[in-house]
Amino acid sequence: MYLFSNVLGVFVFDESFKVIDKLMFKDLQDYQNKNEFIESVKAKHNNLKEPDEKSLSSILLYFKTGEFLQDFKAKNTQLTKRLVKDSVKDDILLIQSLKTIEETGKAINLLAKRLRDWYDLYNPEFSRSVESHETFVNEILENEKKDLLKKMNISGEDSIGADLEQENLEPLKSLAQQVFGLFQLRKLQLDYISNLMDSLCPNIKTVCEVMIGAKLIEHAGSLKRLSEMPSSTIQILGAEKALFRHMKTGAKPPRHGLIVSHPLIAHSDDRMHGKIARNLADKISIAAKVDYFQGQFVGDRLKKELEEKFSSKW
Amino acid sequence: MYLFSNVLGVFVFDESFKVIDKLMFKDLQDYQNKNEFIESVKAKHNNLKEPDEKSLSSILLYFKTGEFLQDFKAKNTQLTKRLVKDSVKDDILLIQSLKTIEETGKAINLLAKRLRDWYDLYNPEFSRSVESHETFVNEILENEKKDLLKKMNISGEDSIGADLEQENLEPLKSLAQQVFGLFQLRKLQLDYISNLMDSLCPNIKTVCEVMIGAKLIEHAGSLKRLSEMPSSTIQILGAEKALFRHMKTGAKPPRHGLIVSHPLIAHSDDRMHGKIARNLADKISIAAKVDYFQGQFVGDRLKKELEEKFSSKW
Repeated sequence: MYLFSNVLGVFVFDESFKVIDKLMFKDLQDYQNKNEFIESVKAKHNNLKEPDEKSLSSILLYFKTGEFLQDFKAKNTQLTKRLVKDSVKDDILLIQSLKTIEETGKAINLLAKRLRDWYDLYNPEFSRSVESHETFVNEILENEKKDLLKKMNISGEDSIGADLEQENLEPLKSLAQQVFGLFQLRKLQLDYISNLMDSLCPNIKTVCEVMIGAKLIEHAGSLKRLSEMPSSTIQILGAEKALFRHMKTGAKPPRHGLIVSHPLIAHSDDRMHGKIARNLADKISIAAKVDYFQGQFVGDRLKKELEEKFSSKW
Repeated sequence: MYLFSNVLGVFVFDESFKVIDKLMFKDLQDYQNKNEFIESVKAKHNNLKEPDEKSLSSILLYFKTGEFLQDFKAKNTQLTKRLVKDSVKDDILLIQSLKTIEETGKAINLLAKRLRDWYDLYNPEFSRSVESHETFVNEILENEKKDLLKKMNISGEDSIGADLEQENLEPLKSLAQQVFGLFQLRKLQLDYISNLMDSLCPNIKTVCEVMIGAKLIEHAGSLKRLSEMPSSTIQILGAEKALFRHMKTGAKPPRHGLIVSHPLIAHSDDRMHGKIARNLADKISIAAKVDYFQGQFVGDRLKKELEEKFSSKW
């Protein structure tokens, strides 16, 4: 006799593939606890065995033609839906938020350049005195033209900017407000990612910066996949182009990928980059494994070891 | 004796290029009314003549080395600044606003795609049921997931979207709000352009749609340059690529450029496109000239003539 279970229930088939006993699942909950059901069926019968390949095809045929076909399809669809639903984990949300930060950055660049081009007609002296788009937007939203000029010791007379009336300033200010809003959005997303990491991957967050950690997870595809990577892969994650160039042309292999902007590397001498990158990737690899398997927090220790080894704090 | 005037004042030179009389301008205002000053100097002297090329160089030398050098430079700078300042006309503002509409459109596309990708995790059924980004954003900002699903007769159970808690919905909603804000910005700019056109180019506005008229001005660079263009140029403005292909390879010449989206062309039979485009460009060319020289409003008549000729209203 064969024991067989699927999404519908637990079945016992005799040697001619007739069902001689069955225990149906009421819902997906039962299916998720199927082991209990299997045990209770096993207790009722002797001589149960797993179907081999040949008998399995006969058994599957039974579900294809039998009374269960409709139900089988419905239950399977339901199960797939549940799996899709449950596949949205915190690391998926983190990746979405990170991508939003990236796209928001592009949108800011587009519109800030446009804003400056327009504002240059009105007050070019100020626009040229501020390099950061963010400072620029904040200042022009908070101050009048004459006050901005006064700060630079330029009289309204001397400015080559046109005098625009209120009605012509409004659309310019609306644009500035939108750019301001996009800067706010980017900050909010960064906070969100930072919060997510506190529960999702506190170790990675401690060893890397928030953005580097998030980018590593995005690049790997998920925390699970990052945790499965050897540290040598983590070290050059994001430098795939240089890696393939190395493999193809024998050029120098890349020393680091995304982690290049980590303060430990960014603030150190170029000669040391390779060595630090190797050690850092080691610690990140440990951190990712601990985070994925939800082990005890070791981020502080990992960070301290790096700081001591390279006598550099960050 | 030579009469000479520049940004500093009106000067009378004798035959050995000594100054024998002068009338200095106090400020740029005087310079702008220089004809009055010239007349009053002319009244005092007989035998005044315009310097010829040879004497002119001697006269100019006087300003290069004389006491006026410093003042000459300052006044000229002041004048240039004034000219730059005054060069910002309504058509320049219109072009800025139009470019903002275009860049805002790009930003909307970037962020709306990102928003959908994210929202798909939460409520994919609804996202796929709405094609327009704008409707999509409005709906998800105004309605809860369960209400959106109800409208489509889908139960929350059946949805494959994940259940997200409030804290994970907030960043998603912030993104939606920014996209909504960008749509608002685009509308506001369109209104602004429409208002500008009422005084700047009412005839163009009547004969073209707002967006087509604005794009023609942007493409030409200014209302002045559009008004100087022959109608055959206006007809294919924006189709430069096709025009050059025609000139280079002998391919068919383009029948229309930016005006292709004008309702008179867009809603008519393809065979007629060339003929309508020619007539439409004619009228636009007239409208642009009338607008630039601020003649009497003829837009209504131009529009009516087109409508009658092609028995089509728009």
